Amino acid sequence: MIETTPQQVDAIVAAAAAAAGPWAAMELTERAAALIAIADRLDAHTEELIEAAGRETHLPEASLRRELTRTTFQLRLFAQVVRAGEFLDVRVDPADPQWPMGVPRPDLRRMKVPLGPVVNFAAGNFPFTLSVAGGDTASALAAGCPVVVKAHPGHPELSRLTARLVEEALVETSAPLGVFGIVYGQDAGVRVLTHPAIAAAAFTGSTAGGRALFDLASRRSVPIPFYGELGSINPVFVTSEAAEARAAEIAAGLFASVSFNSGQLCTKPNVVAVPEDSALLREVRAAATVPVGELLNDAIAAGFAGSVERMSANPGVEVLRDAPDSVRLLSTEAKTVLADPTLVHEMFGPATLLVRYRDDAELRELAASFDGQLTISIFGETSDDTARTLIALAAAKAGRVLWNSWPTGVSVTYAQQHGGPYPATTAPGTTSMGTAAIERFLRPVVFQSVPDELLPRELRAENPLSIPRSVNGSRPR
Amino acid sequence: MIETTPQQVDAIVAAAAAAAGPWAAMELTERAAALIAIADRLDAHTEELIEAAGRETHLPEASLRRELTRTTFQLRLFAQVVRAGEFLDVRVDPADPQWPMGVPRPDLRRMKVPLGPVVNFAAGNFPFTLSVAGGDTASALAAGCPVVVKAHPGHPELSRLTARLVEEALVETSAPLGVFGIVYGQDAGVRVLTHPAIAAAAFTGSTAGGRALFDLASRRSVPIPFYGELGSINPVFVTSEAAEARAAEIAAGLFASVSFNSGQLCTKPNVVAVPEDSALLREVRAAATVPVGELLNDAIAAGFAGSVERMSANPGVEVLRDAPDSVRLLSTEAKTVLADPTLVHEMFGPATLLVRYRDDAELRELAASFDGQLTISIFGETSDDTARTLIALAAAKAGRVLWNSWPTGVSVTYAQQHGGPYPATTAPGTTSMGTAAIERFLRPVVFQSVPDELLPRELRAENPLSIPRSVNGSRPR
Repeated sequence: MIETTPQQVDAIVAAAAAAAGPWAAMELTERAAALIAIADRLDAHTEELIEAAGRETHLPEASLRRELTRTTFQLRLFAQVVRAGEFLDVRVDPADPQWPMGVPRPDLRRMKVPLGPVVNFAAGNFPFTLSVAGGDTASALAAGCPVVVKAHPGHPELSRLTARLVEEALVETSAPLGVFGIVYGQDAGVRVLTHPAIAAAAFTGSTAGGRALFDLASRRSVPIPFYGELGSINPVFVTSEAAEARAAEIAAGLFASVSFNSGQLCTKPNVVAVPEDSALLREVRAAATVPVGELLNDAIAAGFAGSVERMSANPGVEVLRDAPDSVRLLSTEAKTVLADPTLVHEMFGPATLLVRYRDDAELRELAASFDGQLTISIFGETSDDTARTLIALAAAKAGRVLWNSWPTGVSVTYAQQHGGPYPATTAPGTTSMGTAAIERFLRPVVFQSVPDELLPRELRAENPLSIPRSVNGSRPR
Repeated sequence: MIETTPQQVDAIVAAAAAAAGPWAAMELTERAAALIAIADRLDAHTEELIEAAGRETHLPEASLRRELTRTTFQLRLFAQVVRAGEFLDVRVDPADPQWPMGVPRPDLRRMKVPLGPVVNFAAGNFPFTLSVAGGDTASALAAGCPVVVKAHPGHPELSRLTARLVEEALVETSAPLGVFGIVYGQDAGVRVLTHPAIAAAAFTGSTAGGRALFDLASRRSVPIPFYGELGSINPVFVTSEAAEARAAEIAAGLFASVSFNSGQLCTKPNVVAVPEDSALLREVRAAATVPVGELLNDAIAAGFAGSVERMSANPGVEVLRDAPDSVRLLSTEAKTVLADPTLVHEMFGPATLLVRYRDDAELRELAASFDGQLTISIFGETSDDTARTLIALAAAKAGRVLWNSWPTGVSVTYAQQHGGPYPATTAPGTTSMGTAAIERFLRPVVFQSVPDELLPRELRAENPLSIPRSVNGSRPR
């Protein structure tokens, strides 16, 4: 594979740095138009992109098509967010000589501005949505930041094709040259991350890789925000009521969720807590084999095999299914997990661990034992007191709490939250999916006593751009 | 000085951890009432507090009284923010089978929840506003996080008194025990920061101290957000037009700003760029000596003397005034600073460096040479093209941009932004003053397909708490 040389990296980052001012200063409508131009160009080259992705990833064509749809939808959704201007979080405090702090309040007008050039470490499992023109690129560009993508080694040709389409789209807009760039190779990625002109980083991938990059970002002489999504166990808790009332439905959902995209999702459940001797447990044990597709590449396959082996080697773990072309099922008792929480780890592929609990008290104890998570799902009945407790426990540990639903599949919306306390992410206050992802790449600036004609137009008294604002702490009606 | 033992630290943090759930679950009105109770109790003990602060800090009584007023105002302002509920950033996306992503959208309801126990490293220069019951404590408590304060060694008795009053106030409310604690001593502070139960840290102080703590926070096995405000040069740029038109006024403002609180402010201007051979420069050179008060303590005085000496030792720097009981003035040419940007450093005390520039081009070059700042101030005329350029440059580097005003004095308001790119802070997207400071201690959680009766009341369909929300990405009118 061709790797970007240090000289090339420096030139790409310098171009991004040079583009930062002009891109930040572009009209919001023009910035939005550039995002839409990227989406249009990707859509126009659908067949070429799907073919390239199929060659490099083993993902089924239908999945890839859904993913590309989602990717261009996402770009257009961020265009809409940019045009609306709400993300600027404009706040106006007119001068107030009677301000009860005891000192007159000067005129203060605040908005958000882009952080500067962002490096986006592309992921391997979603070659469109989490890669070159994926969520982190869309949200950073939307925020007004140039983006340098570090291509994922799993799909270099698709990355090259996507980057070319993005660049071609941008050339036809008023976007400055250099606002988008791409580098290949691990050393190149590290060089971008540690380059003084880079202001923030986004990453989706493994805990080990993400932590290593987080450490680099934090140890820079000028540390930068590192938004890492490092994966998650995504525990699912099934109450005894639900396990009896809906055994067949929950079992079917479990196999569908664990096998989706061959289990190569950061939201795949790695643990499903079920009552021992329950209808659900019998249903799961008796279910027909669920076939799964090939894994993304040899490295992923090797990693998956290793993680399943490591768990299977534990004497407290029983292997229920281990056919190589089907969902792997392991099983253990809750007390085994409670005695050794390190037993539980992410298995990136189509496998899950059934954790058998004896009673509601043990289920609650189990739920309380987990670290930070992207998702926690609860299957229960509305009347169920344990379910209520589990929801509260889940909200204290996860970014997304689901009821009678499986965590695989993340809708891109205004309210979505894809994040969570460490180790799910390195930045629990942020999301990497949904429109709120734009907030990661912004910082506030307040203008004090600046006359109207010298203010950015977003902050002027007449509000010429009609951007939503709060005045004196509340929204004008 | 008495230091908190490791055993005591662990007990205090354990109590904070135990209080996290109950404090987060308290009604917003009750949480607000607890903040007001603290403010009321501090107000009721004004004389005792002012006396204690005077004994330990050498700050003038009038300053201390203003500061206490501001501190209790701040607690009450956060109480108002808590009651309003806007900070929860509630977003509702009802289920939408036609969602254009290509996959039906489930019902998603998002709000913010507290991060968990926070450690607040108190500052020495504002014994009320930035100390035990100061801004970081107020904003973290308002967010629903328990707080453990690491007392500043500069005012241990005042810290003890303030902590006792806070605790007495809280006991009379429905706040859980342990929601507020305090520790003394550097080792104790480090032990709190690295304790697994601590979820975030706030700090105001020196760059060296703040960076060391940031590194500890980032190197934890579970890294936590570290909100450090590490100080700033706060450059002031005076255009040639303003320097001629308003020489006397600007000179008087300069001395007032640099001498305020004996220059012991993170917002004190350490550099003032003035045109050479200007009326302003003559005015400043000719001005009468401005007397300044004693510094906070011997350590600060020694640090100040050292930093002034270090700058004076540079052969390119001329010492204009060096009387020990007055504002110290140093002077150099812009080209000297441009040739060696390390020449400029924060002098924590009543001193500033006049930087003489030759022309507008050199002024712009100088303005572009600075790192991240809390504030950048511009003195100019509205018609002035250079001023316009300087405002844009300032917005790209600072959290607060001021026009014809001095940066000392930070109003606590809804729009205020006290922060900026590193080294001004370790978290450029956040503020440590103003109501937006509450956002640092929150993280979003989304609830997917959770039935109304199991949702937090903040998210229910009927909105029983009348909390502002956005629906489908916009505010209902």
